[in-house]
Amino acid sequence: MARLRSRILQLFSPNKQLLLQLEHLLGFIPKHIPYYEMALNHRSKIDDAQDNNERLEFLGDAILGALVAEYLFKRYPYQPEGYLTELRSRIVRRETLNNVAMRMGLQKMVQYNKNDRGLSRSHIFGNALEALIGAVYLDQGFVKTRRFILQQIIKPYIDIELLESTDTNYKNQLLSWAQKNSHNISFDTLDEKTEGTRKLFTVGIMLNGELVASGTGFNKKEAGQVAAQKALEVLSVS
Amino acid sequence: MARLRSRILQLFSPNKQLLLQLEHLLGFIPKHIPYYEMALNHRSKIDDAQDNNERLEFLGDAILGALVAEYLFKRYPYQPEGYLTELRSRIVRRETLNNVAMRMGLQKMVQYNKNDRGLSRSHIFGNALEALIGAVYLDQGFVKTRRFILQQIIKPYIDIELLESTDTNYKNQLLSWAQKNSHNISFDTLDEKTEGTRKLFTVGIMLNGELVASGTGFNKKEAGQVAAQKALEVLSVS
Repeated sequence: MARLRSRILQLFSPNKQLLLQLEHLLGFIPKHIPYYEMALNHRSKIDDAQDNNERLEFLGDAILGALVAEYLFKRYPYQPEGYLTELRSRIVRRETLNNVAMRMGLQKMVQYNKNDRGLSRSHIFGNALEALIGAVYLDQGFVKTRRFILQQIIKPYIDIELLESTDTNYKNQLLSWAQKNSHNISFDTLDEKTEGTRKLFTVGIMLNGELVASGTGFNKKEAGQVAAQKALEVLSVS
Repeated sequence: MARLRSRILQLFSPNKQLLLQLEHLLGFIPKHIPYYEMALNHRSKIDDAQDNNERLEFLGDAILGALVAEYLFKRYPYQPEGYLTELRSRIVRRETLNNVAMRMGLQKMVQYNKNDRGLSRSHIFGNALEALIGAVYLDQGFVKTRRFILQQIIKPYIDIELLESTDTNYKNQLLSWAQKNSHNISFDTLDEKTEGTRKLFTVGIMLNGELVASGTGFNKKEAGQVAAQKALEVLSVS
């Protein structure tokens, strides 16, 4: 009934086009449209801090950070805090969010000064996506914002395994450093145990026969990644 | 009924003392005690990342950040993003949280290696407070965590006006700089308007008769603080 009423109101709204775009973007019919209009107003169009999207970006950034933290905390029950922190920062960093926002089509909706060429490098679409999350939170509350972030952002646009596997670069980086400096590197499985229903591996990295770092994970690849990252730190390889 | 049942269970619990301490600290009877036990385990006591409080600290830090952001966003509807960001960082910074945790008595509950003297400077109680927030979130959900943070942490322990008025130091700083350099500084009210039911002031800072910065707030003092902070930046006074 509420949905039907929203739909009828929508058909008679002067913002009909915006409403249809928002519904497509959000996966639900928004209630309080001014929040979303504000989320789409970049400072270059509207200077007044009360009407542009910067305050909503502050709120949305914090809500997104909390929900991504919760998601990772539950998805990776055995990873240490450092791993979760690193993975979260890869998901919420400006480049990732700006890329997601562009693929969502936000550049067609954000109101900004198109003559200001300096803006091209300022991640305005990713910032608008954060502001949009702030608007969803104010309009729909915490639980629906969580669903929005999972269903409309993380699931379709964020490839967490790809972000994680940037870690394999650490392994490659370590191996190429060792080759260049004529060191002998090997990855050894130090431990395998069963935690609840899952297996847990510890992989150690040997440099010229000496253990320099170790890492733990659900599979050997993951454990090796954690270990390689630590080894690069220990060995001060940039 | 649920409360009575919890109370009866509590009286027969082997953890009776911990439960009573927690109830006092939290303002409610916790359900799943292992979360709280984990929140109180410092790494120096339990090395295993799955059993010490570091993962919960990661989660709690993010939840606290989001809830403080929401609180400030709603409390200061006219302050720009920069003001909210600065105030939030003063609330959630390690020194503030460690101080709050000590006043809450967390140092009597956290399990850590008391022989490790290096720990005294590492804010372990503030970190445990964040972990406790993570435990409350997992045990009680978002809405009750918000109530816990507002009622048990912000209201009794955080003096937001004091944290804000560190800004009055900016005003003093500006005035003493002007005096030392024989400049003439005055604070002028540039604008007064009514926004909804509240008054909004804009204060300008005149340096030798020339406007160098202005700020807006709900009262002249607040507006003057914002303006003074900007003036210090503009004039490159450290």
